[in-house]
Amino acid sequence: MIKDNMKIDYKKELESASKSMIMIHDPKLLIKLIIRMLVRKLRIRHAGMILFDPKKNVYVLDISRGERGLKIPEGFTRFYEESPIIRLFKKDEFKHLTINRSAIVSTDINRMIWRESVLENGHGNGTKELLHQVDEQMQMLNAVACVPSYYQDNLLAILLLGEKYDGLKFEQAELDFFSALASDAAMAIRNAQLFEGLRKEASRHRKLFIQTIIALSSAIEAKDPYTKGHTERVTSMSLILARQMEFDGSLKCDNSFMENLYIASLLHDIGKIAVPEAILNKPGRLTDTEYEVIKMHPSKGVEIIESLELPEGCLEGIRHHHERYDGMGYPHKLKADEIPMTAAIISVADSFDAMTTDRPYRRSLSKEMAIEEVKCNAGSQFHPVVVEAIVGMWEKGIIC
Amino acid sequence: MIKDNMKIDYKKELESASKSMIMIHDPKLLIKLIIRMLVRKLRIRHAGMILFDPKKNVYVLDISRGERGLKIPEGFTRFYEESPIIRLFKKDEFKHLTINRSAIVSTDINRMIWRESVLENGHGNGTKELLHQVDEQMQMLNAVACVPSYYQDNLLAILLLGEKYDGLKFEQAELDFFSALASDAAMAIRNAQLFEGLRKEASRHRKLFIQTIIALSSAIEAKDPYTKGHTERVTSMSLILARQMEFDGSLKCDNSFMENLYIASLLHDIGKIAVPEAILNKPGRLTDTEYEVIKMHPSKGVEIIESLELPEGCLEGIRHHHERYDGMGYPHKLKADEIPMTAAIISVADSFDAMTTDRPYRRSLSKEMAIEEVKCNAGSQFHPVVVEAIVGMWEKGIIC
Repeated sequence: MIKDNMKIDYKKELESASKSMIMIHDPKLLIKLIIRMLVRKLRIRHAGMILFDPKKNVYVLDISRGERGLKIPEGFTRFYEESPIIRLFKKDEFKHLTINRSAIVSTDINRMIWRESVLENGHGNGTKELLHQVDEQMQMLNAVACVPSYYQDNLLAILLLGEKYDGLKFEQAELDFFSALASDAAMAIRNAQLFEGLRKEASRHRKLFIQTIIALSSAIEAKDPYTKGHTERVTSMSLILARQMEFDGSLKCDNSFMENLYIASLLHDIGKIAVPEAILNKPGRLTDTEYEVIKMHPSKGVEIIESLELPEGCLEGIRHHHERYDGMGYPHKLKADEIPMTAAIISVADSFDAMTTDRPYRRSLSKEMAIEEVKCNAGSQFHPVVVEAIVGMWEKGIIC
Repeated sequence: MIKDNMKIDYKKELESASKSMIMIHDPKLLIKLIIRMLVRKLRIRHAGMILFDPKKNVYVLDISRGERGLKIPEGFTRFYEESPIIRLFKKDEFKHLTINRSAIVSTDINRMIWRESVLENGHGNGTKELLHQVDEQMQMLNAVACVPSYYQDNLLAILLLGEKYDGLKFEQAELDFFSALASDAAMAIRNAQLFEGLRKEASRHRKLFIQTIIALSSAIEAKDPYTKGHTERVTSMSLILARQMEFDGSLKCDNSFMENLYIASLLHDIGKIAVPEAILNKPGRLTDTEYEVIKMHPSKGVEIIESLELPEGCLEGIRHHHERYDGMGYPHKLKADEIPMTAAIISVADSFDAMTTDRPYRRSLSKEMAIEEVKCNAGSQFHPVVVEAIVGMWEKGIIC
């Protein structure tokens, strides 16, 4: 009676566990959890799961835990279509052997072979041979029972169960229950695999987007030895400045602010593509007309990337990175807090980088002198809060 | 007896249906299927599901099907935290009312109100009021029973059930079963929502990547009025050519070939960023040295986008789009079938577009003359199979 209760107990536990499985979207973690749960609750020596990998069209023994689990040789973890255990559960011609595709127990195999001998009546059809091979394979895998699971008639997985600690045989009711469980588990794993694939795809495409911007802006910079590496330096300086301001309590950086700042600083000078090289690289002083063309680059940049439909919080970082705190900047002569914080940050990072690199018309300043210069222009050219952050970073030796 | 059997039957059907739910990753379709299944199998007049939308932090009545389902007024499909039915199932203080968060039936509410009257002993605590409001809300929704479902103590959804066709009351055992089912359904829907979110993210990032290439190459082209729109025209021509060749049986276009061709044609001239404008836009004849610089653009292009780690099948389309079938092209003087098919296709599309647009040193050819010119150069400049495709398209009027 106590034993029966215990059984109902673990059944309930396993059932409720299997329900929350679909919320775990890391396939490796999920398989680990399932196997661990089975080994513990069923009190068996080890368990494993052979899972179909649709990308590689192969069945893979993903994990096997427990006392004897590690004995399975490395090379035996991949199972192809011709593998006896896969054929047994997959091929229609062997459907009758597993009594409509239910679990099999190693101790039953001899009986199955004997029955085949009687039925085949001397006409060998390979079935006995297959059963012998399955028997061998199960011994190799230390499996006492194999529980297949299907989704829409496709073999998704085979759950391998080792011996029970109490040495007793698995009962039919238990095996039926494991079948249901194995199919839940296999589906949850499949679900997690699809999730992981999609997540990788999303991050691959994001990386492509970012790398494309970096690659193309580097290519543009490469034409002008004076601006080489400028975009990447401005971008990392902007991000560090924002973090410092958050630390100072002068800025609330949520994820979308940081994302906008990141993309905006990567793209801040992209409008320079539209400026003729003759003006961009002119060694002498620019005429007023030429300077007017240069001053178009923030708005031009926004125009160029219009089709990307980036958030306004990002576009304004590009559009206004040459505004000045005193309202004397361009293109819109915005003043003080009218200037979006992304633009105010990029402005300081951009100017600091320009001051500390050589230009055609002057040598670079030392970082110390550049910090002094930025400080002197707090409240006129630069937003005082951003200046405070860069000065703080200088004093703490974060910039050196 | 027959009735009992029927019950077991639909239970089994619903259980097995609920299992495959996690493989459906379109939330709208999934909700539709669940509701339809419930209405049919349970023989109830209508059913609906109020589902938590974590992005908007609101519960939404996603769908309601059946005879009387459509009567629910439009404005009543959103339920906030303060909504009576949400409070009843969500707030800890009302946990005792639903007897540990199980389903409630409208006919029980009067009894619950009466019990509260006895218990509260004259001290009103809002519970009776809440029950009255829930009663009103259920009437508004035509719901006879409300079945809540939770995941890790969070209220995920409330399943709304209309009257049974046979007019009988829902039994407790039925409601318990629906609870389990509702929780499976809610989890499957949550899973599908997460999937949809991830899928959208992946496609948004892919779009960003593609749009960035298009935007930046357009910006580069914009500096030269003669090449405006060139990249986009070459890209679409290349894709059409490949499809035509597949139709002709001269090319096997799998997804990865088409993807490589797409990206390679978008990027084929990206190396021109590295060519000084003075050479690129020179109106007169180029010197040999200048021509050597121009000839570096395919290799330069591959170099610029090296960090994107694009597949080799894509890179070779860029690297070799100026090779010639007779081996006299650049950069590697590849011959005939040594030239990758992506590059051979881009070469024809590129030349055809160049011939049919004005250049600084000559007027454009008519399309008819350009086709003649391409034909004459089959086997010398161009791959004969690609020429066959473009000529076929011209003859069928696909190019006109």
